[in-house]
Amino acid sequence: MIHPTPPGTRDILPEEMRELRALEAALRAAFEQHGFGEVATPTIEYAEVLRRGDERYANAAYRFFDERGDLLAMRSDMTIPIARLVATRLQSEEPPFRLSYIAHAYRAVSPQRGQMREFTQAGVELIGAPAPEGTAEVVEVLSGALDTAGLNRAIVGLGDADLYSQLLAGLGVADEARTRILDRLALPGMRGSPEVLDHATELGGEAVERATQRLRATYDALAARGVADRVQLDLGLLRDLGYYTGAILEVYDPALGHILGGGGRYDGLLARFGRELPAAGFALYLERLHVAQTEEERLTREAGR
Amino acid sequence: MIHPTPPGTRDILPEEMRELRALEAALRAAFEQHGFGEVATPTIEYAEVLRRGDERYANAAYRFFDERGDLLAMRSDMTIPIARLVATRLQSEEPPFRLSYIAHAYRAVSPQRGQMREFTQAGVELIGAPAPEGTAEVVEVLSGALDTAGLNRAIVGLGDADLYSQLLAGLGVADEARTRILDRLALPGMRGSPEVLDHATELGGEAVERATQRLRATYDALAARGVADRVQLDLGLLRDLGYYTGAILEVYDPALGHILGGGGRYDGLLARFGRELPAAGFALYLERLHVAQTEEERLTREAGR
Repeated sequence: MIHPTPPGTRDILPEEMRELRALEAALRAAFEQHGFGEVATPTIEYAEVLRRGDERYANAAYRFFDERGDLLAMRSDMTIPIARLVATRLQSEEPPFRLSYIAHAYRAVSPQRGQMREFTQAGVELIGAPAPEGTAEVVEVLSGALDTAGLNRAIVGLGDADLYSQLLAGLGVADEARTRILDRLALPGMRGSPEVLDHATELGGEAVERATQRLRATYDALAARGVADRVQLDLGLLRDLGYYTGAILEVYDPALGHILGGGGRYDGLLARFGRELPAAGFALYLERLHVAQTEEERLTREAGR
Repeated sequence: MIHPTPPGTRDILPEEMRELRALEAALRAAFEQHGFGEVATPTIEYAEVLRRGDERYANAAYRFFDERGDLLAMRSDMTIPIARLVATRLQSEEPPFRLSYIAHAYRAVSPQRGQMREFTQAGVELIGAPAPEGTAEVVEVLSGALDTAGLNRAIVGLGDADLYSQLLAGLGVADEARTRILDRLALPGMRGSPEVLDHATELGGEAVERATQRLRATYDALAARGVADRVQLDLGLLRDLGYYTGAILEVYDPALGHILGGGGRYDGLLARFGRELPAAGFALYLERLHVAQTEEERLTREAGR
């Protein structure tokens, strides 16, 4: 290879591309079927605008000046751009908004760890519908998308973003130290069926009580929609995106041992763009989904022999 | 709008997005039907590698350093990345290669002139097939794509990249001045049916003779394939991309008065990546195609009243 591409990027040849496009089309149809219309936003935005959604855009990996000297940045997810879109283009329309996307996003990488600099996310945002019903609807769409992709074994982990930080706050740990502790904590995780909520409650404390109540309400709403089967409660779940509040989601496939996507509630994000609305969503990594799909097909073929 | 997006970028809402995705799918099917399999390449590449294909990447609009201090650039078209791909990933495979793409590209803009910073290109590259047959095949696929999009009125202008520069060379104009003259020249253009070639020949000179012979051979090959009808010979055609040689193409819709795309032969480009192969291709601007499509539908509706 004397003309390399940057680490964490790659060329895709027709055979794989056909399968990826078919997967995209299937996910798009599943999102539409649930009433989530696709939107697109610019790949490059004003760094300052993105930063309103997440302070960490101040250190975005790919930033550069345009011809007028304004600082631009490449997006690292679609949630913040869609929050901006709802607060501007859809300003005079009534919530809830059911929006979806299939788009590239960009992150700094440690290529030796197999991370991708450029990747495709397929997901939805439900803006203007509070917990627990809004969360349950998002999980229902997620479950439908996983079925569409043939990932019947995929698990949706359901946790609570505030649980640990409120636990630590209750123990008198200061704000900054809390973030550092959460960053470093190796969480054992209570996982499984709703019984874990009973065990958690035994830990005591108001914060735990509030989080378990929220989780129980969401789980009940999921059961009522008939999509609780693939959901596993996971009190050890933590996501590193700054805007999550309440319910958080993580999708993994036991066959692959890989995280396929994630999401959760971000009830505070829209207010940062001047429009206070409760919201939740998820994003799946298209390329990982495709790998898991191939693996599932192999396992199914082998089981059929 | 208190949270603007950069000039020359925009958000796309579900109604328009549905139509754009349908147009994409139709073009993809048309390309596949002609045997052109879709590929993808990274949006960001090493600036130095892109520059091997086109010296102007030395001044690419969007360049930035990665975490290792290497200079990256966002692509401004797909032809150079696909030439790189053929010279590397397809190194040990036999030409011809029939490849297609539907992908974003990025350019510096004069937003007050309505230019887009980010846009979608849909096109094909036929690598390893010489003129005139290779060119005629590319025009045939282009014609099929325009039919698929319902743009029955769209015209394909066919010209020759070398005509004017060789004319000027014959007049003793030095290399650098030639580029400046070509940049500024307001060309009247001889346009129309093959008769313009007879008129051009009367201008005399060896360069004109070679160009008109090439154009006649391509036109004959197009006629044999039954796709000469929408082709208009255009001796005034000039494209500003540095790598074109021989035949050049420009697509325009009289209803829109806008250029919908372009292309041509780039027989010297692959050699810059170490694999000498004749090549030709075209790219259509998806968003402009969509506008023209909407306009065509309106005209057809009005005519039907």
